[in-house]
Amino acid sequence: MNQTEYSKEQLFSLEECQKIIQDELEKLSIYQNPEPSRLYKPVEYILSIGGKRIRPSLVLLACNIFCSDITQAVNPALAIELFHNFTLLHDDIMDKSPLRRGNPTVHKVWDENIAILSGDAMSILAYDLLVETEERYLKKVLKVFNKVAIEVCEGQQYDMDFETAQTVSIPEYLKMIELKTSVLIAGSLQIGAIIGGATDDDAIKLYEFGRNIGLAFQMQDDYLDIYGDPDQFQKFIGGDIVSNKQTFLMLRAKELANQEQLRLLNTVPIDPSLADEQKVTEVTAIFNKLGIKEIILQQINTYFETGLNYLNKVQVATSQKKQVFEFVQKLKARNY
Amino acid sequence: MNQTEYSKEQLFSLEECQKIIQDELEKLSIYQNPEPSRLYKPVEYILSIGGKRIRPSLVLLACNIFCSDITQAVNPALAIELFHNFTLLHDDIMDKSPLRRGNPTVHKVWDENIAILSGDAMSILAYDLLVETEERYLKKVLKVFNKVAIEVCEGQQYDMDFETAQTVSIPEYLKMIELKTSVLIAGSLQIGAIIGGATDDDAIKLYEFGRNIGLAFQMQDDYLDIYGDPDQFQKFIGGDIVSNKQTFLMLRAKELANQEQLRLLNTVPIDPSLADEQKVTEVTAIFNKLGIKEIILQQINTYFETGLNYLNKVQVATSQKKQVFEFVQKLKARNY
Repeated sequence: MNQTEYSKEQLFSLEECQKIIQDELEKLSIYQNPEPSRLYKPVEYILSIGGKRIRPSLVLLACNIFCSDITQAVNPALAIELFHNFTLLHDDIMDKSPLRRGNPTVHKVWDENIAILSGDAMSILAYDLLVETEERYLKKVLKVFNKVAIEVCEGQQYDMDFETAQTVSIPEYLKMIELKTSVLIAGSLQIGAIIGGATDDDAIKLYEFGRNIGLAFQMQDDYLDIYGDPDQFQKFIGGDIVSNKQTFLMLRAKELANQEQLRLLNTVPIDPSLADEQKVTEVTAIFNKLGIKEIILQQINTYFETGLNYLNKVQVATSQKKQVFEFVQKLKARNY
Repeated sequence: MNQTEYSKEQLFSLEECQKIIQDELEKLSIYQNPEPSRLYKPVEYILSIGGKRIRPSLVLLACNIFCSDITQAVNPALAIELFHNFTLLHDDIMDKSPLRRGNPTVHKVWDENIAILSGDAMSILAYDLLVETEERYLKKVLKVFNKVAIEVCEGQQYDMDFETAQTVSIPEYLKMIELKTSVLIAGSLQIGAIIGGATDDDAIKLYEFGRNIGLAFQMQDDYLDIYGDPDQFQKFIGGDIVSNKQTFLMLRAKELANQEQLRLLNTVPIDPSLADEQKVTEVTAIFNKLGIKEIILQQINTYFETGLNYLNKVQVATSQKKQVFEFVQKLKARNY
């Protein structure tokens, strides 16, 4: 498929990996106007409206820890990106989301049937890229991919189940975000490591590193929704409160709340007489009284530390992990 | 995965293959009440409401032409059956069908979101069975599977496009049914052949055999909708006319019709003042005047003959193909 060779003495940086992914995505046949156009245009569309290409870049970075030539990791990395966008496409239908990355969602531009079918096609195209994995690693890579892919579906199902659930415990919530978000990040790293020639043990350590980093990342999302800098964080502050989402902050607050606070946490977000801003102010005040900000920051930090511990244990020279460490530093510092 | 060995001196019959598929399906983990249940119960449901397991049985029959031990073909065969049911599940959402095999469809029993997501899970489960293919054939089998799988999506898209198209030509119609129906039958045979150890050339011949048999099969469906025995054919006779479906019969009739007949073919099926029975009677009368029955029977026969020619050319003793020949005889004789 891709002819370009990606090999050099120094490590590839995150930005270089993102550029490789972007370049290689644009070489895919989807961009050659294949027929039927109503099947393939939505695939081109969702890939074109961006995203930071973090997951496929992690495939390349993980491969690069073990191997200076990352060419063989490119197609599997593209597969991960296609699969990720396929799940977004179908999630947007299920969540009835009008926007994705600031653009109208596929089912809004076209319709739900088109969104279902082009998503299906996209997941098959992901597997067709995955088949380009070197034959000696093919079965291993597919097994990791399938395990992770089915877990992402499980996570989405739990997320939907929680919308109508009476109560959600924190362990249940953590399991859900692990499945829905972390395992694909973890699997991306494990697959990259396998293709780079890592031992099974090191590949699993990278999976565990990714699983923890992914949890930290999702927790950051919960945190930033309330405590993010509104200038840098281009979302409405408190969106999770207004939509009555049961995030880690809300669930932990409910555990710690007294009777009156609990009543408010349960009623304020769904009180039709309150303006959105007022809902956010009231709930945030309770969060602050309960020390929720500090609790979640501590939790995020723990996930980062646990993840880094796994990365430290990977049996190669520390210098080989430089770019992955830098990625974690960037992630830690994000406030948008 | 499956432990049972399927090997014997005589060839396996179609019925034996259907039984193997049924037995092995019931051993899948989906039947062990996995969580989240709202993700996996619909998969169990659609697999449980039956179907004749033709495609997976063809995987086994094709393997058996080349190899007395068909054990290695079982998991790939199950993968084909899961994939086929996944496409039915999603097609039923898109077509808003209330019934599948006489039972309420998944989106009716649960809801559309559940149907989308459990379908997605089912397609991944299909790939997870496919990975159990012997490693020496894995890449080859996956490539055939992916090609066929994406073509099935293309066929469904063309089918949806045709609903709003001004005109559909017969070549366009044939391409659509080839993609939507035939290629999966063809791919099943090719995959079975590959796993049985066939040469590439013989595997392709079985693909072409299946492609033609599949076209004959779909044409039979069009034929039986009008000319089937209502006692044996458990559908309403003329359903395609009443739903104004552009089948081969209708498209060919429109080509041959004079101006007045064409006007009737265009207006009768959608005339709200006519009872369904009257629509069927009037359109069938035109079909009969134009000799459409003979034309489609001839066309069906040509596909069967072309298919059998490919089967004849497969380079093994004719006795090895006995069960596949018998399958074709059964298919030819079907009037339900």
